[in-house]
Amino acid sequence: MAESRSRYDEKLALVLRTAASIFADKGYHQASIRDLSRATGLSLSGLYYCFSSKEELLFLTPDHCFGPILENLEELLTGVDEPRERLRLLIDNHLRFFVGNMKEMKVLSHEAESLSGEYRRRVNAKKKRYTDLCMEILAALSPAESTAALRTATFSLFGMMNWIYNWYRPDRDEPVDRLADRMCRLFLEGYLAGGALEPRPRDAGGSTDESGPSIWRR
Amino acid sequence: MAESRSRYDEKLALVLRTAASIFADKGYHQASIRDLSRATGLSLSGLYYCFSSKEELLFLTPDHCFGPILENLEELLTGVDEPRERLRLLIDNHLRFFVGNMKEMKVLSHEAESLSGEYRRRVNAKKKRYTDLCMEILAALSPAESTAALRTATFSLFGMMNWIYNWYRPDRDEPVDRLADRMCRLFLEGYLAGGALEPRPRDAGGSTDESGPSIWRR
Repeated sequence: MAESRSRYDEKLALVLRTAASIFADKGYHQASIRDLSRATGLSLSGLYYCFSSKEELLFLTPDHCFGPILENLEELLTGVDEPRERLRLLIDNHLRFFVGNMKEMKVLSHEAESLSGEYRRRVNAKKKRYTDLCMEILAALSPAESTAALRTATFSLFGMMNWIYNWYRPDRDEPVDRLADRMCRLFLEGYLAGGALEPRPRDAGGSTDESGPSIWRR
Repeated sequence: MAESRSRYDEKLALVLRTAASIFADKGYHQASIRDLSRATGLSLSGLYYCFSSKEELLFLTPDHCFGPILENLEELLTGVDEPRERLRLLIDNHLRFFVGNMKEMKVLSHEAESLSGEYRRRVNAKKKRYTDLCMEILAALSPAESTAALRTATFSLFGMMNWIYNWYRPDRDEPVDRLADRMCRLFLEGYLAGGALEPRPRDAGGSTDESGPSIWRR
C-alpha cells in the first residue's frame, strides 16, 4: 500500500514536471493532453488517473509550488526572530526554489489568469498568504512604513526574484547561493537606507513633472 | 499626402493598441485577426494594409515600445553626465512608459518567445541596446563591479520595474512619479551601499549550505 502510494506520487511528480515544461514552451492553451502523453509515455487513461482536466493540471502546478515554498519557509522561520535574518531566509528559500523549478515558475507567472473559479481562488489564497508573510517581515524591519511603501517594497522584491526566469542560466551564471546573497544585500541595504520611505518633494523644474504619463500614453 | 500619412499612423496606433489588449487578455496564440477586426471595426483587408501577418503584428508591439523608450531616454540623457541622475531618468522614463502601456508591456514580457527569425533578432537587438545602456550607467556609478554583479543588478532593476504589470493599478496605487521615486531610491541606495558587490563568505552552519538546490529540485 505504502509502495503504491509512493509510486503514485512519483508518477504525479513526473506528470507535473513534464506538463510545466510543455506549458512553459508552448503556452497552456496551445498544449494538449496528447503532448503530455507523448512526452511522459503514459496513456491518456493513465494521465486522467492523476488529474481530471487540463485546468486541474494547470492548478496543480502552482499548488505544488506555493505549497513547498510556504511550508519550507515557515519551517525555516520557526524560532528566528531577527527580521534581517527572516528576510534573508525568505529570499534564499524563494530563489533556491525558483532556480530548481524554472519551468514551473514561468507557468506560474504567465498562466495565472488561465485559471478560473475555485482553482483561481485557491492559488490566490496561497499567493496572498505568502505576500502577507513578506510584508510582515518588511514591516518588522522598518515599522514606520506606510502601506504604499510596504506594497512597493514587497512587489519590488518579488519582481527582482521572479524575473530571473528571463535571464538566469544555472549553467552559466553564479550559483544560486551567491545570487541570493547579492539580491538580499541589494534589496536590504536599499530598504534599510529608507529607500521605500515617503518620497522627498521633487526638485522644481525636473523632467518628471505630472504631464509625463499623458505624453507616454501612446 | 501629409494628412493621409498621419491618418495611417493613427490607424496603426489604434490597431497596435487594440492588438496588445487582445494579446494580453487571450494570449497571442489564442487571438485571431477576426477578434482584432471586431474590436477595431476595421475590415480584414483594412487590417492587412497595416501588417502582413499576425507575427508581424506581434513584432510591431515591442518594436513600437522599445523604440520610444530608447529614443526618449537617449534624448533625456543628452548633456546629463551625473550617473545618479542618469539612472533616475532611466527609471522614471521606464516606469512612465510601462504605466501608460501596461497591456503592451504584458505582451512584451509574455510573448517574446512567440517571435522567430528576423523579427526576434530585431527585438532582441533593441532589448540588448537598452540593457547595455543600463549596465553602462550602473558601471559608471560603481566602476569596480564584476560582470556578475552588474548583470544581477541590471536584471534586478528590470525585474522590479517590469513586474508592476502584476500588481500596480494606476487608479488605486500611488501616481507613477512617486512610484518611480521610491523604486529609484530603493534600488540606488542598495546598489551604492555595495549591495551587488562580491558576496562575503557565508556564515558557517547557516541554513544556506550547498545542498539547498538539490533538495529543492522536485
